[in-house]
Amino acid sequence: MQELGVVHRTITRASEADVEALSAFGVSTIHEAMGRLGLMRPYIRPVYPGASMCGTAVTVLLQPGDNWMLHVAAEQVHPGDVVVAACTTENEDGFFGDLLATSLKARGAKGLIIDGGCRDVATLQEMNFPVFSRAINSKGTVKATLGSVNIPVVCANALVNPGDVVIADVDGVVVVPAARAGEVATAAKKREDNETGKRDRFASGELGLDIYNMRAPLEAAGLRYID
Amino acid sequence: MQELGVVHRTITRASEADVEALSAFGVSTIHEAMGRLGLMRPYIRPVYPGASMCGTAVTVLLQPGDNWMLHVAAEQVHPGDVVVAACTTENEDGFFGDLLATSLKARGAKGLIIDGGCRDVATLQEMNFPVFSRAINSKGTVKATLGSVNIPVVCANALVNPGDVVIADVDGVVVVPAARAGEVATAAKKREDNETGKRDRFASGELGLDIYNMRAPLEAAGLRYID
Amino acid sequence: MQELGVVHRTITRASEADVEALSAFGVSTIHEAMGRLGLMRPYIRPVYPGASMCGTAVTVLLQPGDNWMLHVAAEQVHPGDVVVAACTTENEDGFFGDLLATSLKARGAKGLIIDGGCRDVATLQEMNFPVFSRAINSKGTVKATLGSVNIPVVCANALVNPGDVVIADVDGVVVVPAARAGEVATAAKKREDNETGKRDRFASGELGLDIYNMRAPLEAAGLRYID
Amino acid sequence: MQELGVVHRTITRASEADVEALSAFGVSTIHEAMGRLGLMRPYIRPVYPGASMCGTAVTVLLQPGDNWMLHVAAEQVHPGDVVVAACTTENEDGFFGDLLATSLKARGAKGLIIDGGCRDVATLQEMNFPVFSRAINSKGTVKATLGSVNIPVVCANALVNPGDVVIADVDGVVVVPAARAGEVATAAKKREDNETGKRDRFASGELGLDIYNMRAPLEAAGLRYID
Amino acid sequence: MQELGVVHRTITRASEADVEALSAFGVSTIHEAMGRLGLMRPYIRPVYPGASMCGTAVTVLLQPGDNWMLHVAAEQVHPGDVVVAACTTENEDGFFGDLLATSLKARGAKGLIIDGGCRDVATLQEMNFPVFSRAINSKGTVKATLGSVNIPVVCANALVNPGDVVIADVDGVVVVPAARAGEVATAAKKREDNETGKRDRFASGELGLDIYNMRAPLEAAGLRYID
Amino acid sequence: MQELGVVHRTITRASEADVEALSAFGVSTIHEAMGRLGLMRPYIRPVYPGASMCGTAVTVLLQPGDNWMLHVAAEQVHPGDVVVAACTTENEDGFFGDLLATSLKARGAKGLIIDGGCRDVATLQEMNFPVFSRAINSKGTVKATLGSVNIPVVCANALVNPGDVVIADVDGVVVVPAARAGEVATAAKKREDNETGKRDRFASGELGLDIYNMRAPLEAAGLRYID
Repeated sequence: MQELGVVHRTITRASEADVEALSAFGVSTIHEAMGRLGLMRPYIRPVYPGASMCGTAVTVLLQPGDNWMLHVAAEQVHPGDVVVAACTTENEDGFFGDLLATSLKARGAKGLIIDGGCRDVATLQEMNFPVFSRAINSKGTVKATLGSVNIPVVCANALVNPGDVVIADVDGVVVVPAARAGEVATAAKKREDNETGKRDRFASGELGLDIYNMRAPLEAAGLRYID
Repeated sequence: MQELGVVHRTITRASEADVEALSAFGVSTIHEAMGRLGLMRPYIRPVYPGASMCGTAVTVLLQPGDNWMLHVAAEQVHPGDVVVAACTTENEDGFFGDLLATSLKARGAKGLIIDGGCRDVATLQEMNFPVFSRAINSKGTVKATLGSVNIPVVCANALVNPGDVVIADVDGVVVVPAARAGEVATAAKKREDNETGKRDRFASGELGLDIYNMRAPLEAAGLRYID
Repeated sequence: MQELGVVHRTITRASEADVEALSAFGVSTIHEAMGRLGLMRPYIRPVYPGASMCGTAVTVLLQPGDNWMLHVAAEQVHPGDVVVAACTTENEDGFFGDLLATSLKARGAKGLIIDGGCRDVATLQEMNFPVFSRAINSKGTVKATLGSVNIPVVCANALVNPGDVVIADVDGVVVVPAARAGEVATAAKKREDNETGKRDRFASGELGLDIYNMRAPLEAAGLRYID
Repeated sequence: MQELGVVHRTITRASEADVEALSAFGVSTIHEAMGRLGLMRPYIRPVYPGASMCGTAVTVLLQPGDNWMLHVAAEQVHPGDVVVAACTTENEDGFFGDLLATSLKARGAKGLIIDGGCRDVATLQEMNFPVFSRAINSKGTVKATLGSVNIPVVCANALVNPGDVVIADVDGVVVVPAARAGEVATAAKKREDNETGKRDRFASGELGLDIYNMRAPLEAAGLRYID
Repeated sequence: MQELGVVHRTITRASEADVEALSAFGVSTIHEAMGRLGLMRPYIRPVYPGASMCGTAVTVLLQPGDNWMLHVAAEQVHPGDVVVAACTTENEDGFFGDLLATSLKARGAKGLIIDGGCRDVATLQEMNFPVFSRAINSKGTVKATLGSVNIPVVCANALVNPGDVVIADVDGVVVVPAARAGEVATAAKKREDNETGKRDRFASGELGLDIYNMRAPLEAAGLRYID
Repeated sequence: MQELGVVHRTITRASEADVEALSAFGVSTIHEAMGRLGLMRPYIRPVYPGASMCGTAVTVLLQPGDNWMLHVAAEQVHPGDVVVAACTTENEDGFFGDLLATSLKARGAKGLIIDGGCRDVATLQEMNFPVFSRAINSKGTVKATLGSVNIPVVCANALVNPGDVVIADVDGVVVVPAARAGEVATAAKKREDNETGKRDRFASGELGLDIYNMRAPLEAAGLRYID
């Protein structure tokens, strides 16, 4: 349940094996393997080209213009975690910069997803610490009001529970519930194998119309060709 | 006329010579050469740096969350075409990915302009298949509802007729009606020649105020200098 | 005072020494050193990766779709200036391109900040002439209506007076009043020195909770830890 | 074809009978009767509650911040026309106010659709002169640059040809090509008759699942009910 | 858990007494009483002035441009329910109109909250059937792809579980978990009583500075008064 | 100068006579009378229909999600003032509600302009206390971080100095520097008188083309009429 002013120290992370398995796939493949669910809104973008990550979620609920809880969250980070920061409102302030990145990296974090702003982007890129955010913004924040750590949060319209697997790459960010991680990895593998075969057929000039047997349903739907 | 559920197999493409001639110029130059018309809205952006294209339009009208018609369009692509995909509403789903790109490339397409979302961006960049879109988004689409292929479409507020020349680069996307392609290429050449001479004068420190004889009209308009 | 149709030829620029001192720091550091004021809205972004600048403001107030005043401003540019262009309304037309860039560069300008659109981006990148804008847009502009040069302007919600120092990098754009430039440079230096020490502590795994002595105030605010 | 600097004095308007027939229906009904085409983007909204109109289009292509062409258009207005104003770019300036409304009303215009801003809204409401716009904005405009009148325009992503029927109400704005007006009115009537019968069935508690025979296709699509 | 293609027929609604108790308060009061959580994003707005509702959530997950699941949901509506419709992506199509409203009303629904578009607004107002949506849009939808009914959904960035209490008025939309409904109603009452007393003090000219004892903390924070 | 943590108790308000004179005119007229300057961005809208105000500015600079300074500002309000609240960043939280409105009204304030959110809108309308804001939002705020009162602020891209005259109506919000208030009122009167005469001519069917002598300049600009 969502409550302000609490830190859950004990969370159930997806297994390392499942995270490892999922890390082999891209966001689009995993989203499809989940039955087309689990995506964050596409306004969350990498702050530098090539940023990507896969890890287990430590969640944070921030207050606008206030990054206090990110410091609280840092202590809860285990190696392999991704910090997922939601906010109680829409806010693009620069909640996160190079010092917090140094801290999270030292704790073993894989990166940050934040429905807010991020700064010190040049340094983050040098550090190779990936951040996906809704804005790049120098605007500083205060440390005055409580949020929470490791409660369920809604980040960019996606529900994230602590311990879920979060995968981010140039295509976006997808969240896999911890309990489904193994099953989704298997489905992703299957989908990718399936696509490989299709890619060769497409490359040879064969059409999706024929590969997917679409001609009959298109005709049934009433499609008319006009010369 | 706009109608759903039809595919025009016969379209009149701009001549290869005209497309070739236009391909020598950037979008801004061609837009000026057209009398400052023909631009798509600037929210259409390349999905990777350096993407650019010039070709003849095969148009598609999509339904939201549905990429069926892109498969229908693939069959209508001739070498040198650019697929221009509009949608009946605003929608940023990931209508297009690497398999469709493989298909279009195999048919000789030069690229895709889509007033919607695109995914598999890392692979598209590796394939060097340029896409300009309104969003990058993993969100998958269905194949359930008819749109149309090779009808006039409005894409990002620009009217595109099948066979028109579409040029896209970092500055945006411009559409040249097939019948005007030769004339516009000539005007673009003239404009570029004209600018070359001006560039040298600007580089030497001469001012636009003098190059363009603006001092008198500025004074006539009432401009006052205050020391 | 804001008035249309005037050009102030005499402005008081921040001293070269102060500009030089400020150029050593990033936008986020300077914004903090100013007491968290002076930022433009984060929708102003570099038109190519790596663009950055630091210089004294020559201000321009543009009319929508009209770049006449940029030519008037060019004459007022001294080496080391940054042109800061506001608009009387929201407008994303392509007010600025490679010819004006050539002109400004020849006059010694360090770059352009514009609450509007910019084009010829490929050439600007080749020229290494940095521009920060709200859009990339080929849309051409006319030269018909007076604005002003070197009056106070509001650009992307920040007040800019002629002669102020403007610093732009990947994190955004910050404006330092000319009279405060020296003081802010000193404060920025102090802040950066302070951060360097902290960076090492964070890197060693020490937490912000301890470095900033946050545990007591968090407890006082009512934070509860749940195992 | 789109060209700047021209005024077409002769346009082919939809017949009065067809306009009269269409005026009996709402925008949503007509949009459906057209096969779900012809809508403007929903950001075009009435400037006061209850505004609505139905008439034949006199089209205008405006330049940003410039309402010169609206005066040119006024002369081309016949009784029963609706002025449809597009702009060469996105611009929310106040192109239109009470004086132009007085002029258009005196010429017999039914109202204005503008992909731009509108002002003097209190007076427009008193005058009962309906305007649908993308913004309400006091910002004044100049009269300096040519656009065109009675050329095809793209307004809020919809193609409008001079003489087309334009219907606007609280649900939005739809454009019916002049040549299809009679056919669409007939289809709208049929649709409305059809809906009336359905409304009674829904009101009695019957479900769409049964009225539209959806249970079998839902089951075929795999819908599962869980108790 | 989120899954597509399922309908949960059995949900646990908040008690009628709790809903009744909550219906006495406005959205802002309830949001405060919940500890400042539970709000939808403010882009969800009433489609006509004065619309408001309070009831138990029947949730729907829609696909873009497809309102099939709203018909499935109608069957699950009990008197006193509010339908809360989320979408798998951002989409402003007109998913809902007067026929569905007639159906929902006949089933006893109190209204609809939809993270999408709505049409037939004039009729909805006449029917006095309240809808809160992200857009008003005539755009029609299809019935082709499965979503789900009565699963947890994220609607306008708020998590809604079936059976939760949803309150909507001019200030926005707030969601109260079913299990907390009684407790929140009590807290809302307390807050409102508290405010009533304060209102009189404010009305008499007393300042918040004194009512809330802010002078000392402001001074401690460093506030300086300058004459 | 902008500085955080200060309250200026002494400000120079425009004279009552000038405010009275300006209160006779609408925002669009005053904006024109100022030479087309002084407008806030049009996203600032009245929270209920018919809201309007004219008064002298007491300015506030808020921190995101924090309305502490509004309480500080209340003490500085004199009868006839309008509170103008800017924020250090973009934030739509509900900074203002009925208690603060009661307080401001008791102090004699004419209303509030806020580049943020507002709540308790139904009560504000009952109280007839006008507010213009960028959003309606229940989201509560804290009282933790200092801003300032009666410093120059930039609100919705307009510079506002304490004591300036602020006029707001359905067309938007305009700011008149205190020192120019008399002159602008005179110019507004002149403009309105001028328009009255023109309105009659427009109403009689005379065209702007003739009233403003536009035919010759249009021809000179190259306008072509085509029959």
